Amino acid sequence: MKQYSVLFLPDNKEVKAFEGITIMEAAGLAGVKLENSCGGKGRCGKCMVRIRDRGKNNEQTVDYKKVLACRTKIKSDMDIEVPQVAVSVHRKNQINLFDLGLTMEVNPGIKKACVQISKPSLDYQVSDRERLLEQLNDTKDNVNEVCLEALRMLPDALRKKEHLVTKVLCGDKIIAVEAGDTTNTLCGVAVDLGTTSIVASLLDLNTGKQLSTASATNRQNIYGADVISRITYCMENKGGLEKLHAMVVEVINGLIDELCNINGITSTDIYQVTVVGNTTMTHLFTKLDPSNLALSPFIPVTTRRMVLEARDLGLHAAPHAQVHVLPNIAGFLGSDTVSVVLATGIHRDGGTKLVIDIGTNGEIVLAGRGEIVACSTAAGPAFEGAQIEYGMRAAEGAIEEVIIGEDVEIKTIGGYAARGICGSGLLDAVAGMIAAGIIDASGKIIAPEEASHLPPQLQKRLGKGDGGKYFVLATEEETTIKGPVLITQKDIRELQLAKGAIKAGIQILLADQEIEPGELDKILLAGTFGNYIKKESVITIGLLPSIAPEKIEFVGNAAGMGAQMALISENLRMEADRIAERIRHVELASHKDFHNQFIEALYF
Amino acid sequence: MKQYSVLFLPDNKEVKAFEGITIMEAAGLAGVKLENSCGGKGRCGKCMVRIRDRGKNNEQTVDYKKVLACRTKIKSDMDIEVPQVAVSVHRKNQINLFDLGLTMEVNPGIKKACVQISKPSLDYQVSDRERLLEQLNDTKDNVNEVCLEALRMLPDALRKKEHLVTKVLCGDKIIAVEAGDTTNTLCGVAVDLGTTSIVASLLDLNTGKQLSTASATNRQNIYGADVISRITYCMENKGGLEKLHAMVVEVINGLIDELCNINGITSTDIYQVTVVGNTTMTHLFTKLDPSNLALSPFIPVTTRRMVLEARDLGLHAAPHAQVHVLPNIAGFLGSDTVSVVLATGIHRDGGTKLVIDIGTNGEIVLAGRGEIVACSTAAGPAFEGAQIEYGMRAAEGAIEEVIIGEDVEIKTIGGYAARGICGSGLLDAVAGMIAAGIIDASGKIIAPEEASHLPPQLQKRLGKGDGGKYFVLATEEETTIKGPVLITQKDIRELQLAKGAIKAGIQILLADQEIEPGELDKILLAGTFGNYIKKESVITIGLLPSIAPEKIEFVGNAAGMGAQMALISENLRMEADRIAERIRHVELASHKDFHNQFIEALYF
Repeated sequence: MKQYSVLFLPDNKEVKAFEGITIMEAAGLAGVKLENSCGGKGRCGKCMVRIRDRGKNNEQTVDYKKVLACRTKIKSDMDIEVPQVAVSVHRKNQINLFDLGLTMEVNPGIKKACVQISKPSLDYQVSDRERLLEQLNDTKDNVNEVCLEALRMLPDALRKKEHLVTKVLCGDKIIAVEAGDTTNTLCGVAVDLGTTSIVASLLDLNTGKQLSTASATNRQNIYGADVISRITYCMENKGGLEKLHAMVVEVINGLIDELCNINGITSTDIYQVTVVGNTTMTHLFTKLDPSNLALSPFIPVTTRRMVLEARDLGLHAAPHAQVHVLPNIAGFLGSDTVSVVLATGIHRDGGTKLVIDIGTNGEIVLAGRGEIVACSTAAGPAFEGAQIEYGMRAAEGAIEEVIIGEDVEIKTIGGYAARGICGSGLLDAVAGMIAAGIIDASGKIIAPEEASHLPPQLQKRLGKGDGGKYFVLATEEETTIKGPVLITQKDIRELQLAKGAIKAGIQILLADQEIEPGELDKILLAGTFGNYIKKESVITIGLLPSIAPEKIEFVGNAAGMGAQMALISENLRMEADRIAERIRHVELASHKDFHNQFIEALYF
Repeated sequence: MKQYSVLFLPDNKEVKAFEGITIMEAAGLAGVKLENSCGGKGRCGKCMVRIRDRGKNNEQTVDYKKVLACRTKIKSDMDIEVPQVAVSVHRKNQINLFDLGLTMEVNPGIKKACVQISKPSLDYQVSDRERLLEQLNDTKDNVNEVCLEALRMLPDALRKKEHLVTKVLCGDKIIAVEAGDTTNTLCGVAVDLGTTSIVASLLDLNTGKQLSTASATNRQNIYGADVISRITYCMENKGGLEKLHAMVVEVINGLIDELCNINGITSTDIYQVTVVGNTTMTHLFTKLDPSNLALSPFIPVTTRRMVLEARDLGLHAAPHAQVHVLPNIAGFLGSDTVSVVLATGIHRDGGTKLVIDIGTNGEIVLAGRGEIVACSTAAGPAFEGAQIEYGMRAAEGAIEEVIIGEDVEIKTIGGYAARGICGSGLLDAVAGMIAAGIIDASGKIIAPEEASHLPPQLQKRLGKGDGGKYFVLATEEETTIKGPVLITQKDIRELQLAKGAIKAGIQILLADQEIEPGELDKILLAGTFGNYIKKESVITIGLLPSIAPEKIEFVGNAAGMGAQMALISENLRMEADRIAERIRHVELASHKDFHNQFIEALYF
């Protein structure tokens, strides 16, 4: 097959791409991040780039033209200009459990110690390894093994700073040796591996403090927005699993590089990694065959915590850095749910608590009456802004807040001109539209001729296009994209399906435990979704059973928080193991009441 | 830098080679084996190939011409025809310790067991890993861990043969899972990693039987014939260590592929590997920095046995196959010496025994008086046929036996026309020349005018060329090379240096233990060298102290044998660990008597 040279600007990254792959795929190869929330369907328009055909003789004769990266195939050598506003991995204003006053022991299971090693001589012809261990015996470390990569760096590390070295200890193994005293730098990364977004946090393992967080789109979404289509991709394409595995590792590595860059460290300073995600995502991350997750009886390869090394997966970290992939519960209930429970502590204290983690799937856990039960709903990624006509993830320029009064008032992330709408903005918008009477209880957008009760500014925003009825959220003047940002009838249907699935799941769990909604002490809403939204909007759309509003709490990205907690404490990792074993999975798909509950829950 | 397409025939292997590398190096990249005993100095002529310039348009217009692969740089696309007689990895008539009636326990520390695993269902939604372990608990295996690659193959292995699987157990870990009952196939490879030659043996780990042996030139020799020049290469060239490491792994992989091919197995059937070699070679094999071995005080990175996995090194074997690199003793006394002691058992029974392992270095071990002492001499590879004008390793066409009477009578390996001379042939030739009076006690070849005492056929064989005096061993009519096979004055000097170093080493060890040569119960001669040579020749050249000839025994490639013994028995591996700790290293270079002994030992 023919190969072409593709140069991405302004990063100046070049790749050789086979003829016929998309620019989106080539960007993946080059490590260039493109926004992409519709899963490569050519609908969200977020991946717009400008291309210039380089022609045969490398002469740049053709002008730049705009194309969608996900829909454009490579047929010649070309330069591709990536709009810089599309690249954004920093997040602000995250709710941080550490800031909430949680005190946690810092016991990451990994430590550094600086030691002076004796020098060899003709009278003391002892190998580097033996001299290193003699010192260690002095300090009562029960070390038996010096790992291969530690041995490889040992001679140089010893001789660089007069035999003063810092050893990195993991259990009874020395996993690395560094020249001089580097005890102050000991880092770890916690990864929340979502179907749609990946969030990574860099932590100082000496103090347990979070240093930075970065997030990016899970680039696997070009092979399907949901886990089932990704599993299908693996089953139907030779090398598909390897490809999806490499893709997710690449995104994580990009985030790690970014975090290292910001904090002035190198990736080899990272000595521990924790990863949480749903069962499919953890299978893809570890390159375990996910096929049987999609086929009855839906069997994972393993549910246990996996303890791997960075080198096993090609992660940007010290080669022997421990990678803890937290335990899963079942085929569709993953370590992200375990992590949410760990972070919120609902398994510890008494009381009856419900926690809902809203991502591409919605996981619901109910603790009370001594048992913990959980279920997973295929809510779809509407709450993350994906599969929504103008949806995008919560990055700069996303509409995150909407107030509908006489007219529509919007607030975007970072105060930039609007580029699209994220989960919280969608929720606000739909809640506002319900309150204003723009949509009815069945979810239908009213026709302009039925809108006489609306203020004139709102009336003007109603319209109908090829795709059906819509409501203008941001006018063309308020956006950086070509045209306005709309809420379409289809978007509302997506949201209805998502909220219906979650609400039905909640009701099934409550029934299972014979708990009335009013008996709940607390409902915790988790998810990156949960950071900015208004309680009133959630109540208005009817996501939750009727409960006193003061019992509802937003806890932010609890899965990511749990991953961070597990990163800094071996005890909490073991607690996660116990949580995974303790939770009873309630299978919704085969549950007799689910469909009935679901249909009822669709209405606003 | 420019790259060219280089096609090796008849193997049809193509590589892209940078401009200016030699054909020898390109052959290495392509995995094509070329004979090469002079270390790329353009002297031995063994690497003669025929090349055809492909020109710019891929048209094969130019005729083939003969060149030396080690001295010819690549400057265009070309086809290279490799003479088939140059490629030979099979050895016959090896002395096999197993054939000598040694009975050994077969306890390789790795085992297979076939089990029927239960199938999952909607009522039994248990992960593949848990179901595998449930079965294992039944059979009382104390298994805690299922390795990553075993998990990766698990779903497929389970479902291919109705959940009948064979697990591969190493200690408390499952390192692989295979579909169906494959318990009959469990293989291992023992590698003797010589500076000049590499020998690999395939063993059946169920029975402990050797299946095949193959050997090849250590292609690192293009970067130096001895360990010091290879260490220097690593120190002076960025990426040098990585290159030499990759090279030795590549040769071993070639041997493994060959062994698998012959025996109808795949490399993933290999679940254990043992490796012995001198300290430099084991450092290069494991990619440990050897620099400090060449600098006083000559410190290795480690001397302990290393237990690695095939995937750590890129070896062609099951990814988690255990690779045991046996322990070294000191900077210049490696695991090959430990292995020789293990195989010959001189550390076990009483009596005073001397064992000499002759390879590129000569290692000498003396056991008696309760202590085991050992030294290493830089004998040079003359005994292996390297650094000898017409020298070659013991492959088809090598003169391996020489009788000098009225005329010269030669015998070649396989009965082919002569291509060169191997170690045993050289020894025979020099011994015969001494006996016939062709060389004097100082090692000088007599001048034709002093040769009147010789039979006329021998007189005719004396001559003098640009390189000094020589003796014709095989006439042009007896060879396949262009011209006759000669023994040159320089060759005799090489042999003198080698035997002088070994003899001096022996005398130093005997003096250290206050043992007279006559008190020795046995002298064991080991080395691939030791397979074919005549006791009389050894005595004639004066390699050994004066001792009754019946006390001399040839034990073949004892290092390789020890590696095989360690492969099939965990107890013997632990015995090797104890041997390495027990042997006291006698440093020759700094020994006060060495130079005196050495000079005296040079004379025949």
